[in-house]
This record gives sequence, structure tokens and C-alpha cells, in this order.
Amino acid sequence: MVSQNQMKRIRSLSQKKIREVHELFIVEGLRSVSEALNAKAPIKSILWTKEFSQKNAHFIKTISTDQNEAISTTEMKHISPASTPPGLLAVCKIPTFKTPKMNRNFIFLDHVSDPGNMGTILRTALWFGIQNIALSEGCIDPFNPKVVRGAMGAHFHLSWIGTMHINDFKDYTILGADHQGDSIQSVKIISNKWVLVMGSEAHGINENLKPSMNQLVAIPKIGSGDSLNVGVAMGILLHHLTAEALVSP
Amino acid sequence: MVSQNQMKRIRSLSQKKIREVHELFIVEGLRSVSEALNAKAPIKSILWTKEFSQKNAHFIKTISTDQNEAISTTEMKHISPASTPPGLLAVCKIPTFKTPKMNRNFIFLDHVSDPGNMGTILRTALWFGIQNIALSEGCIDPFNPKVVRGAMGAHFHLSWIGTMHINDFKDYTILGADHQGDSIQSVKIISNKWVLVMGSEAHGINENLKPSMNQLVAIPKIGSGDSLNVGVAMGILLHHLTAEALVSP
Repeated sequence: MVSQNQMKRIRSLSQKKIREVHELFIVEGLRSVSEALNAKAPIKSILWTKEFSQKNAHFIKTISTDQNEAISTTEMKHISPASTPPGLLAVCKIPTFKTPKMNRNFIFLDHVSDPGNMGTILRTALWFGIQNIALSEGCIDPFNPKVVRGAMGAHFHLSWIGTMHINDFKDYTILGADHQGDSIQSVKIISNKWVLVMGSEAHGINENLKPSMNQLVAIPKIGSGDSLNVGVAMGILLHHLTAEALVSP
Repeated sequence: MVSQNQMKRIRSLSQKKIREVHELFIVEGLRSVSEALNAKAPIKSILWTKEFSQKNAHFIKTISTDQNEAISTTEMKHISPASTPPGLLAVCKIPTFKTPKMNRNFIFLDHVSDPGNMGTILRTALWFGIQNIALSEGCIDPFNPKVVRGAMGAHFHLSWIGTMHINDFKDYTILGADHQGDSIQSVKIISNKWVLVMGSEAHGINENLKPSMNQLVAIPKIGSGDSLNVGVAMGILLHHLTAEALVSP
């Protein structure tokens, strides 16, 4: 049985400082927890509600061990950071990444602060084969529960995510997403690896970073609007960089 | 002064049925409210906090009329549907759209239920010049406050948003986003107008709709993951359909 103390500790993992102390984070929902299991991520325990196990009996059979057990819906509501808990919650060890592999393409996030956006960005980066994510100071913690929810298991396939500096990207073509940049059609990759810098939702790329860029690139606007969502913009740019630019350089 | 009754009524606009009765919806934040003003949308009243007006004195000067006034932070928290209210809230009339113009390209949303996704979809559609949005039964209400927040003012530039049936799209090339479809590179537009169908977050496009499609199209996966976010996927497809496919047909 899960004790009151354990409940309290799981609940407290919604806070960044507690996650850092215990090196644990929360993963919720069938898709994300399945990804963690498939990737053999270091899961400490899995909890579910009766309602969830009735709908997912086969899945529950595969995970029943001492560390994993059913709790009440009220208990789930108490420990889950979600406003509508999916009924399946895993506590997982935060992976320790060694050093970033500086022969791979990267995404660099500059002050991306919205957890939903960060989650979408990780999921999208993985889809396009980018497993290395550099963060500026001031980004939302990637192990925040809302980030994890939006990332749909991407965390378990990353090679690196952590704070870096733009100067770490020597020998890289540094591309910045900026609505005043050149059309993505005219992007020039002038070295055998690139890093794509995405700026904050409110302010775009920090002016201090711009002198480091080889090229600013934009997604041509056909209609109207002030900007695209940062996750959508990155998806369009990555699709171009991976599927199109590299096929016909 | 805003009366207690008015406060209560604004607060109740978080509910779909109340929005429908009063034909009003809530718009929050500087960017979205500015878009409403620029588009000369029928705004009934604008409310703001002292904190907001101190930071945005110039903006507040431009909107000060009888219908618009400052309220306390506590009052704003009470009436705002946001967990962190931006301090600026407009009550706006829900536009009455006449009939959809069946000579324009469309987005068709099939059971898209997440308000954040719907908001991103509207913002992204507008960017690519698509002002006509058809909804299946079962979509989230597009005037839900979370949809409006994510759409960043897109609502004020739409020509049509409302429930339609796939059979309404005679003479259209009907494209469906589906991960088992043909690569987007091979998309064929076989008429002078198209409709892009995006399915639900959990289940994709309803099987019942698939026989109506001319082509299912997919975004090639280079890395890993189960799927892309529906807003990201639509952005990539629209970029291709508007900027690329039509330039070199």
C-alpha cells in the first residue's frame, strides 16, 4: 500500500526544486508511460485507478509488480498535477545525460517558458530525428509535468537536454527562427551540422544572440497574424531542414 | 462601475450554453484585444486592472470610454477564465457568419477536442491565408476562452467557422492528414480548391470519413514517436500546400 508520506512526496514532485532533490519526475497517461516502459526508462513505481485498470486490463497485467498498485480516484486526484488525471501515473528517475554529442544537429531553445510549447517542441524534434536539445537560462524545466504531458514520451528518447551556451556551437551553421529573416526556401547549410535556435513566445530570439547567427530564417506569411506558435514554427522549419533541404542541397 | 450582476454574467461566459444565449464571448490579453480593436470587432466592454493600465498607459488611453473601465485584481480573478489573468478582458459579440463561401480553400476539423490545439489551428490557418474552418459535430466550441487565448486574435479575421458535413465539399480535392497516407511530397490537387481534414488528437480521422477522401497525406517521420501534435501537423501540411505545392504544381 502507498503510504500517506509517499503520496505527499509524489505530489511534491510538481515542484522543480523537489524534482531536483529527489531526481524524480512524474509521467502520466497510457501513451507516455508505455513509451517509458518501451524505452526501459528507470521507473520507480506506477500507480493507477480502478477505473483505468478496468479499461486497460491487458496493460495493467503487464506491469503488476510490488512497486506498482491501484489507488483510489481521490488519491489519484491528490497526487496528480493534472486537472483531469488520466488515471495512470509513473514516478520515473530523471535521466543523467553525460555530455552533449557535438557531431549532431541540435535545437537551441532561448527562453521558451510555456510548458505546453516545450512539450510540443520535444515531441516534434524527436519526430524529425533531433535528439539533442540545448536550453538557454530561463527556459521552463523540461521535467515539469505539463512539459512531460505534451511531449508524449519524447523524454525517453532524448540523447541530451540541458543548459548550454550559443558559443558551444563552434563549426555549426547557426540558424535562428525570426519573422524578419530570409524565407526558409533560401536557407543555406554551410557546414555538416546545424543548430536551429527558437526564441521565446513573447519576444523571439534575444538580441544578444543574433550576432552569433549565420542566418535568420522565416516562414513566409500568406495570410495574416502576428506570428506562429513556436512549436508549429519549429515543426515547419524542421520539416524543411530534414526532409527537403538535405535531399536537394 | 461594473455591478455584481455584470461580473456574474461575464464570469458565466466561460460556459458554452451561456455564450450561446447571450451571443457573447471573452477575449483576454493585449495581443488578442488589440486584434479585436483593429478588426473593428463588436466589443461590448473592456475591463482592466490597475497593474495592467500602469504597464500599458498608452493603450488604455486609446480605449477609455463609458463601457470600458478599471476593476480590482480580485474582481479580475473572479471574472477571468484564465488561471493567470493577463489583466485585460474584453466582452465581444460572437460574429454571425452568413454562409460558407464554397469557392475558397478550407480546413475541416474532425472531433478536435483540445482547446489549445483548436486555438493554435486557427492562428496557423490564418497565417497561411485560410479563413474558412469547417467543424464536425463534437469539436470543442471555437469561442471557448482557452481556444480564444491560443488563437491570438484569429477569430476576428475568419470568414467562416461552423459545423459542416464532408458532403458539403463537392468539387473539392479532399485531403486527409493520416500517418498511413502518402508523403506530403506526392500530394495531388486535382481541382482548383481543396479542403484539408485534420482528425482528433486521440483517434485521427474518423473511419466513416475516409471513403470521402481523394488522398490521405502524411508527414514523413525521420526519427521516432507515435504522432505529431495536430496543430504542428497542420502547419507543416499547410506550408506545403500553400507555399510549395501551388508554386510548382
